[in-house]
Amino acid sequence: MSSTTRTTDDPEHSRYLESVRAQHLGALWSYGRELLPPEPMSHVEPRIWRYTDVRATLLDAGSVISPEEAERRVLLFLNPGLLPTVGTTRTLLAALQLLLPGEIARAHRHSPAALRFIVEGEGAHTTVDGERTTMAPGDLVLTPSFAWHDHESTGDSPVIWFDGLDLPLVTALEAMFFELHGDRVQPLTEPVDASKSRSRHGTLRPAGARTATPHSPVVNYPWESTERALTAAATMDGGADLISLEYTNPDDGGPVMPTISAGVHRLAPGANATVGRRMASSIVHVVRGDGTSLVGDTELTWSEHDVIACPPWVTIEHQNASDSEPAILFSISDEPVMRALHLYREG
Amino acid sequence: MSSTTRTTDDPEHSRYLESVRAQHLGALWSYGRELLPPEPMSHVEPRIWRYTDVRATLLDAGSVISPEEAERRVLLFLNPGLLPTVGTTRTLLAALQLLLPGEIARAHRHSPAALRFIVEGEGAHTTVDGERTTMAPGDLVLTPSFAWHDHESTGDSPVIWFDGLDLPLVTALEAMFFELHGDRVQPLTEPVDASKSRSRHGTLRPAGARTATPHSPVVNYPWESTERALTAAATMDGGADLISLEYTNPDDGGPVMPTISAGVHRLAPGANATVGRRMASSIVHVVRGDGTSLVGDTELTWSEHDVIACPPWVTIEHQNASDSEPAILFSISDEPVMRALHLYREG
Amino acid sequence: MSSTTRTTDDPEHSRYLESVRAQHLGALWSYGRELLPPEPMSHVEPRIWRYTDVRATLLDAGSVISPEEAERRVLLFLNPGLLPTVGTTRTLLAALQLLLPGEIARAHRHSPAALRFIVEGEGAHTTVDGERTTMAPGDLVLTPSFAWHDHESTGDSPVIWFDGLDLPLVTALEAMFFELHGDRVQPLTEPVDASKSRSRHGTLRPAGARTATPHSPVVNYPWESTERALTAAATMDGGADLISLEYTNPDDGGPVMPTISAGVHRLAPGANATVGRRMASSIVHVVRGDGTSLVGDTELTWSEHDVIACPPWVTIEHQNASDSEPAILFSISDEPVMRALHLYREG
Amino acid sequence: MSSTTRTTDDPEHSRYLESVRAQHLGALWSYGRELLPPEPMSHVEPRIWRYTDVRATLLDAGSVISPEEAERRVLLFLNPGLLPTVGTTRTLLAALQLLLPGEIARAHRHSPAALRFIVEGEGAHTTVDGERTTMAPGDLVLTPSFAWHDHESTGDSPVIWFDGLDLPLVTALEAMFFELHGDRVQPLTEPVDASKSRSRHGTLRPAGARTATPHSPVVNYPWESTERALTAAATMDGGADLISLEYTNPDDGGPVMPTISAGVHRLAPGANATVGRRMASSIVHVVRGDGTSLVGDTELTWSEHDVIACPPWVTIEHQNASDSEPAILFSISDEPVMRALHLYREG
Repeated sequence: MSSTTRTTDDPEHSRYLESVRAQHLGALWSYGRELLPPEPMSHVEPRIWRYTDVRATLLDAGSVISPEEAERRVLLFLNPGLLPTVGTTRTLLAALQLLLPGEIARAHRHSPAALRFIVEGEGAHTTVDGERTTMAPGDLVLTPSFAWHDHESTGDSPVIWFDGLDLPLVTALEAMFFELHGDRVQPLTEPVDASKSRSRHGTLRPAGARTATPHSPVVNYPWESTERALTAAATMDGGADLISLEYTNPDDGGPVMPTISAGVHRLAPGANATVGRRMASSIVHVVRGDGTSLVGDTELTWSEHDVIACPPWVTIEHQNASDSEPAILFSISDEPVMRALHLYREG
Repeated sequence: MSSTTRTTDDPEHSRYLESVRAQHLGALWSYGRELLPPEPMSHVEPRIWRYTDVRATLLDAGSVISPEEAERRVLLFLNPGLLPTVGTTRTLLAALQLLLPGEIARAHRHSPAALRFIVEGEGAHTTVDGERTTMAPGDLVLTPSFAWHDHESTGDSPVIWFDGLDLPLVTALEAMFFELHGDRVQPLTEPVDASKSRSRHGTLRPAGARTATPHSPVVNYPWESTERALTAAATMDGGADLISLEYTNPDDGGPVMPTISAGVHRLAPGANATVGRRMASSIVHVVRGDGTSLVGDTELTWSEHDVIACPPWVTIEHQNASDSEPAILFSISDEPVMRALHLYREG
Repeated sequence: MSSTTRTTDDPEHSRYLESVRAQHLGALWSYGRELLPPEPMSHVEPRIWRYTDVRATLLDAGSVISPEEAERRVLLFLNPGLLPTVGTTRTLLAALQLLLPGEIARAHRHSPAALRFIVEGEGAHTTVDGERTTMAPGDLVLTPSFAWHDHESTGDSPVIWFDGLDLPLVTALEAMFFELHGDRVQPLTEPVDASKSRSRHGTLRPAGARTATPHSPVVNYPWESTERALTAAATMDGGADLISLEYTNPDDGGPVMPTISAGVHRLAPGANATVGRRMASSIVHVVRGDGTSLVGDTELTWSEHDVIACPPWVTIEHQNASDSEPAILFSISDEPVMRALHLYREG
Repeated sequence: MSSTTRTTDDPEHSRYLESVRAQHLGALWSYGRELLPPEPMSHVEPRIWRYTDVRATLLDAGSVISPEEAERRVLLFLNPGLLPTVGTTRTLLAALQLLLPGEIARAHRHSPAALRFIVEGEGAHTTVDGERTTMAPGDLVLTPSFAWHDHESTGDSPVIWFDGLDLPLVTALEAMFFELHGDRVQPLTEPVDASKSRSRHGTLRPAGARTATPHSPVVNYPWESTERALTAAATMDGGADLISLEYTNPDDGGPVMPTISAGVHRLAPGANATVGRRMASSIVHVVRGDGTSLVGDTELTWSEHDVIACPPWVTIEHQNASDSEPAILFSISDEPVMRALHLYREG
């Protein structure tokens, strides 16, 4: 007999448990090991969403709903293991957002932090707390907690980006605040792309300009710099199967936002690389390439722009299908949350 | 028409949403404002559990189940608004635990942090990572995340304490780890009550003994010191309706554990005191006295040792029913979580 | 021949060095090892000043000079090894200050931080940034960097206290700022002894009252609490030859001020205790007892209220001369400076 | 009569002061305002050393002394106001170091932190804790406190660099430790230029590679990146007379070392720029250009590679003599010391 559950049909015990329930109490011993499992039992299903499918559905949305009606024309990646809760993992939500030529996604702000990784299309810009940045494929744009943000497309083709948010975390903590801006488009108060130029300074910072915000002061981490960094790292560490770089807050060296970290990874041609168990969930967006990942026990075959949900505390193995080209992955993780609460571990 | 929801019965739109769902996607605009409400809409019901009732049920458990069977003889306070999720609030779980004379609650450890506030009975002790402390009514005993702990009663009457845990938070983050100790009772490696003596030093600390743990090094905050502090504060600040003291980690001045803060409050005779909205949930245990609290819109009348669940972001008003005696409340809060994630606010 | 000094009488080299000097340059190799010694070569002489002597001289000052003339009637302990620089060690300056009945030491403030340990006399008070505290023997009173402070005696006997300052450090860094208050005695803005009561709360703090100052919010650490802590520590750790407690900032667990730490020590009856080398200088004030200390190679025999200068990086050995009574020592140290600059080490 | 000094010729008072001195005491009131001046009275003389002169003297040293004899062939900039103390300011020491083709400056380490800014010559390298970096003009190389370092030239012309150290600070704190390595040249344990490549990643960092050292993990900040950052900043902020960038520790966003910060500045063609009073001393090295600086009341006219000593708490005005070319300045400062000790201020 287990030392912790009493599965007896003893009618006295059953009557007791009923009276307990009636008082809005629970007898700890009546719960099985699922309340206190030896290791995390995640409800997050390892899962892939294929870009070709989602993109088609998203473009359909362009005719089904206007941004005025939708406020944001966004398709959320809903993990079946978490339904009816909205989330790609327990803390993170990924989505794809579409902006058609001439459209505006109106200015608002909210306590969930968000970031955008541009997937395709030119000619859109985002304004964050008065600073406008132009978005190009591969750029990472931050819209931190409670920063005003609006998007606008002045190009001539659809613009699609990957959204990453900590909305499930904020919802679980019941800490949601949301506010519409008085204007559809907020006024500009900073030079255009001010922080984009700034992020090009690397390890040099305008003297006296260190911020005290808990998030990175950089609005846009441009792809050009990211790719240069990946190439430099690959050149330097030529034999590595997997090179992982983390986007950092240059003012404190930490993650880009207090609840979400972002990284970019280069899987060498033909490489097979394993990432050990970590007490953090993550979502991967394929920037470039084809391959297969084993997420826990689930094998997932991926192509460009696919999105993959990874539960915490599983081993992940990536295989690049190409023998000639590297594969590039972008990822977000809730590791900063686990570290801040001293729950992070590896093993 | 709302700018953000499309409640139309347009069949094309319905078909579209169906195809979205089939792909494990969600259309952001199909969710109502509940996904992004302007302010927190907590599922936590303001609620009271009366000690006279729960105590009786708990003592009944003494005959229904042994600690060997139960591992811990614990009744959880389950907030009806959160069912089937186990929690008193979204992040915190309160419970009452019973130890009868001669019983042992065997040694284990887990990633959720826990604290104990002794309600009644003498003669029990708890051992935390090799340090044993005697428990008397009003003592606050910490069993931080992943600290080995066991309890034993060598007295001659039942011992009951209030348990406060961050289990709902750790479960929501899927970060649960649990381990049984090899021995029923862990071996002692520190002098008995070592840190209890230490906590009596107040603002003086053994030189060189500053710890680097994220939790307080104090195992037991004895009631005698707590009461002396309350009295000193009341003497000094005589006219105050409400005096609130926070238990602190003497090594960094922060909360006792990274996910739970603990406080003790003195409501002056006849006093009526209001606490403004805070982005933190809390649970109150009545140490002494009678009164009424308005938690949001819910009026709750309380007596000694009752337990009250308080959702985040509501105004709370306490009224001491006695014109001659102060009322004393103990409370726990998830404020450290909200601060660590930069989600805390007042307003 | 040493690898680093060229002591040759080569006239060409001499001429070269002369031309170097003429340009306000220095040839590194012309300096001996004293510029880069393998270990600290302190100019601080281990030294004792006897209270009976200094007290007599200080009381004489009472008739020689008024506080109006003197601003402060203070005798500085000048280490002969540092002259003409003013310092007891390279960073710390100790002094004794006398206030006669009815006298006032007028309000001023300065960038050097200071603390006071009361040696004898009742009836004086100090006001620090608007908060007045009564001073009794054994009390530790802080007057942090740039805090307004004035002293006044309303008793009927002389009051003498030990002053500890970081003036030599601030002078060496050329960071001295000094300002006289517009009034001789600053107005009170806080309740009398507000923080003295507060410090009695030990590990409980008024909720929401955590300060952001770099120094302790406690103005007065009363002797009664200090003695109680020493007694508790001695009871708990009965066999210890030397018990050392550090006064802490309850709001962050650190030293009382960013440049000076303060400690109190109990040397058991008959005990002989050795303190290893530390990269910090210190000054000891004998609170009670008689004994002998070996500071480096210098033997110093001490009695009540004597003051001892200790250079950095020497071994210190204390011997209590009494077999029946403990000796109590108070000390200040520049360890926080060394830690803040990452220069601290032990060995 | 001043309220704080007693300049009387009163013979009783004189006798009293004599007896005070005889006891190694000092009467506070006998010191004039120089002990507690209202504002810093720096002994540091604003001063310039001209590169053409110092370079010639340094090259002469090449024939006067070998690196074996000298350990380092270094000429120190000695501020006349501080003599006989060795320092360019009270905390900082600048120097020029010469390495001739084929020479080695043998491996050692010391508690003072040092940095090198390459002035002229190619073909030298420095090894820091097992990592070798090639040095080119404009590169900034760090040799932090107690890091092993050796230098070697394999080029065919003299290599000269600017040394910046906190030696005066460490000496004043009596915290000097020095050690020779067992080998003349330490063995390599890291890839050549590992951190140089790393610093090119800008705001992206190898995942998991955040260091816990108090100094920057970057060994070499190459000029190419520095110049690119200056150009980007100038392009973005086109009209600015003075652009100041600080070299940062990418792992925490702070200064490059805990006691020394380093910056680079671009003075626009024809520009005149004023820097207000700061509680920090600094040393400027002219990278490129000609101009005039008013340091406090002292006017100094400078050309390429000159070195200027700046006392704390003076206003500094820079004038670029050229109407067509920007001037570039490199500087070091003790601002991190003042901030760590909470003595920093501006005004």
